[in-house]
Amino acid sequence: MSESSVWKEKFEQVCQYARETSTLASVGALLDWDESVLLPLAGGEHRARQSSLLAGLIHRRWVDEQFGQWLDELAASPLASDRHSVEGATICQLKRQRDKKVKLPQSLVEELSHTSVLGQQQWVEARKRNDFASFKPLLEKMIGLKRQEADALGWETCRYDALLDDYEPGEKTANVRRVLSGLRDELVPIVAKIVDSGRRPDVSMFEGNFSQASMIEFSRVMAERFGFDFRRGRLDTSPHPFCTSIGPNDCRITTRKTPRTFSDCLYSVLHETGHGIYEQGLPVEHYGLPPGEAISLGIHESQSRMWENQVGRSFAFWQYALPQAKTTFPKALGNAALDAVYFAVNDVCPSLIRTEADEATYNLHILVRFELEQALLDGDLSVDDLPAAWNEKYRQYLGIEPPDDADGVLQDVHWSAGLIGYFPTYSLGNLYAAQFFAQAEQEIGPLNEAFGQGEFGLLRDWLRTKIHCVGQRYTAAELVEQVCGEPLKHDALIGHLKQKFGPLYDVSFD
Amino acid sequence: MSESSVWKEKFEQVCQYARETSTLASVGALLDWDESVLLPLAGGEHRARQSSLLAGLIHRRWVDEQFGQWLDELAASPLASDRHSVEGATICQLKRQRDKKVKLPQSLVEELSHTSVLGQQQWVEARKRNDFASFKPLLEKMIGLKRQEADALGWETCRYDALLDDYEPGEKTANVRRVLSGLRDELVPIVAKIVDSGRRPDVSMFEGNFSQASMIEFSRVMAERFGFDFRRGRLDTSPHPFCTSIGPNDCRITTRKTPRTFSDCLYSVLHETGHGIYEQGLPVEHYGLPPGEAISLGIHESQSRMWENQVGRSFAFWQYALPQAKTTFPKALGNAALDAVYFAVNDVCPSLIRTEADEATYNLHILVRFELEQALLDGDLSVDDLPAAWNEKYRQYLGIEPPDDADGVLQDVHWSAGLIGYFPTYSLGNLYAAQFFAQAEQEIGPLNEAFGQGEFGLLRDWLRTKIHCVGQRYTAAELVEQVCGEPLKHDALIGHLKQKFGPLYDVSFD
Repeated sequence: MSESSVWKEKFEQVCQYARETSTLASVGALLDWDESVLLPLAGGEHRARQSSLLAGLIHRRWVDEQFGQWLDELAASPLASDRHSVEGATICQLKRQRDKKVKLPQSLVEELSHTSVLGQQQWVEARKRNDFASFKPLLEKMIGLKRQEADALGWETCRYDALLDDYEPGEKTANVRRVLSGLRDELVPIVAKIVDSGRRPDVSMFEGNFSQASMIEFSRVMAERFGFDFRRGRLDTSPHPFCTSIGPNDCRITTRKTPRTFSDCLYSVLHETGHGIYEQGLPVEHYGLPPGEAISLGIHESQSRMWENQVGRSFAFWQYALPQAKTTFPKALGNAALDAVYFAVNDVCPSLIRTEADEATYNLHILVRFELEQALLDGDLSVDDLPAAWNEKYRQYLGIEPPDDADGVLQDVHWSAGLIGYFPTYSLGNLYAAQFFAQAEQEIGPLNEAFGQGEFGLLRDWLRTKIHCVGQRYTAAELVEQVCGEPLKHDALIGHLKQKFGPLYDVSFD
Repeated sequence: MSESSVWKEKFEQVCQYARETSTLASVGALLDWDESVLLPLAGGEHRARQSSLLAGLIHRRWVDEQFGQWLDELAASPLASDRHSVEGATICQLKRQRDKKVKLPQSLVEELSHTSVLGQQQWVEARKRNDFASFKPLLEKMIGLKRQEADALGWETCRYDALLDDYEPGEKTANVRRVLSGLRDELVPIVAKIVDSGRRPDVSMFEGNFSQASMIEFSRVMAERFGFDFRRGRLDTSPHPFCTSIGPNDCRITTRKTPRTFSDCLYSVLHETGHGIYEQGLPVEHYGLPPGEAISLGIHESQSRMWENQVGRSFAFWQYALPQAKTTFPKALGNAALDAVYFAVNDVCPSLIRTEADEATYNLHILVRFELEQALLDGDLSVDDLPAAWNEKYRQYLGIEPPDDADGVLQDVHWSAGLIGYFPTYSLGNLYAAQFFAQAEQEIGPLNEAFGQGEFGLLRDWLRTKIHCVGQRYTAAELVEQVCGEPLKHDALIGHLKQKFGPLYDVSFD
């Protein structure tokens, strides 16, 4: 046998092994989906047993010595020479993931997992009772554990790098800090100007008596129109909207079980639809291996935010959608004017709660968290001083101050669950979305006319070719360079916001 | 350490191992349930991969040498001396199941599995085109494989014993044949008399315009009233009704996605509710081990049939349910008389299709299949002659003849899937149901009055104590002896049918 066919055979062996591990993980995804969507009240305890048994099997497969040896050999082979080839990306990304798992001591993994479960329980209670003090010891413990995790994984210039890498592989804190600070410096005065305009849309049209079934059906029609393939997916309801893939042809999105308003339901679906179109656009032939998997949380979020905001909150979208909405909801929307609806879905108002924030203020919420979690991890900020620091940043960036910790520092589950380094990916998503969308319009031409006629295929196909089909063959940073010819920048997002909100709020940003 | 504590420790080890295998199997149950109820159209291929990967893991755990050695040692220990104790039943039943799995060569298991998948596909096509000839080669192959399976498992007096044992552990063909022949000899003239009476109820009241949501909601209320615990279970829709457990507190039943009539929906739910109440009544503390598992398909079916027929088709049930049905369906049932409804749900009429058969004729459909599949397995009947033999038996037992094979010999999926030895468990269920119910009324007193008031707890608690909590500590034959003081017999079922249908059809059976 020739040398190259020996390598090919070894590569096939590794692929088959990794695909089986992925298949087991996809079974775990069904357990999780079912838990959020359907599980009977009393079924939780056994579900935890099922999930942790499966997680153990999967972990053992990852850290398997033989698998590691195969990967080490392949990494030194000619097959790995081009990191962007299917073979090279498969080998490098599998090795990267395995190396990280091997570095974490089993005892630390178990303590993190245990503390995360406990943390989420304590967080629910603390938030309910507005009692930060009772949550403090756990948060301190969690931060200590995350420091240990970062140190076990290893880092060069900055401890936060080690954690960020879990969600945004290859990205560096310094780079994110540079871009987000630039964004912040331009965004704070933009939001202030919008607030000062004194203008506010009337959003009461969305708060009427919309039947849940009709809201979901309308949202489903829009999701399908955007290009979510329901032969390869589902839409259900859950306490919080999410998107998950249970197989290459089984992507499931949800919207909130009890939506606050019609627009809450619709935009949750459009957001998850964006995630779903990415998942459905990944190359099926590489399913279960890195070239068939999403690049990073930031790139994933860029797809959801683009379909939600650049498309779903555009004037053109409502040109198409409003006549249908009027037919479906004649009482609530029969008399709604297009301009008024467009204004209402673009209501900008600094508020306390991140998950309810609008397109303009959202990134300021993220900045607060991004800056604070770095300071916590580095030891520059103590957990004792966290609530005051939180409130101070809300004053500075959003011009408002939380009346209590429940709607302040206690509002997000993330830190209690050990998700540190996760928040910035939301803003990276918004930045990438704006860069990709600007590039798409530069290449295809303005998309308004097509959107106005309910045609979204031009954008979708562009995203398929440029982003979805890449899988993990490029990092996020490489992808944006390749697609847009420039690195991660905040200009496109600021441009998008100015262009939209200037006319709506009758302000000039020059 | 004392000898007994050494055994106890080894026993605990085996239990933990077996519980983990069960937990994996319960994950497989979720994969299957989801496939029937929710899976997107294009998701089938990956679901098959997930299921077969998991099945492989589970099989490897069963045939594991170390596990086998532990079981062999324990089977010879004092812990196994009482086969009805928790320890004894656990050891004996696990060993019994493992021994069977070990006896089957891997190549045969794979060929059976492959032929079953192929067989079901070919059966769908053959039935659609009414083309028995195209299905014949596969059926011949399947029967050959099932002979090999029986021979690999081993048998003494009769090859069919080896297959029956999969569904009805410990039961013998000769015994089933004896009881079912006795049943047949009494049943054929009963059905003939009913037909000759010339009476038929008017069932059109169930065929009106019932909304699917209301039908299911009404059925759900009845299921809950019978005692199905919705904190520990769900009701959904699927192409064919079924019941499955995904955990000790997660039992899921379904009704048909497109019910033919209101009564079709209701009785499907009540039937599956019976299965579900059994599952929910198994001792949770033994979950995942034989003392926490159902005895046999026949005993399972006895529970579903009792709640469907002895309870759900009783006059007393409708005394309770009709006023509520009138409120829910004022147009369709507002003027329905209690006598007419009771008669309508007890419509007896020899028909071609087993799954649509009534309480009286159902067992004749089973007898046809039971007798034919024994003859096929023994080589007394060739597949060539099967359609003619089928039609002849329908003429003899039911007085009708299928106009074609699609509604004759091709109507059931079972044989194509390799389920030979399965059919008689349906009739065993009917027989056990009648015996258990008669015994319950003998001990508790007549239950009519309670049923009429919507009180089903007396019966449910009796079943819990006498049957559900036993798990697999007794075989079906031992259980009926213990509960009723007599072996499997057909008298109770014949008595029940005569008592019900005599007055309804104005005939005397003496």
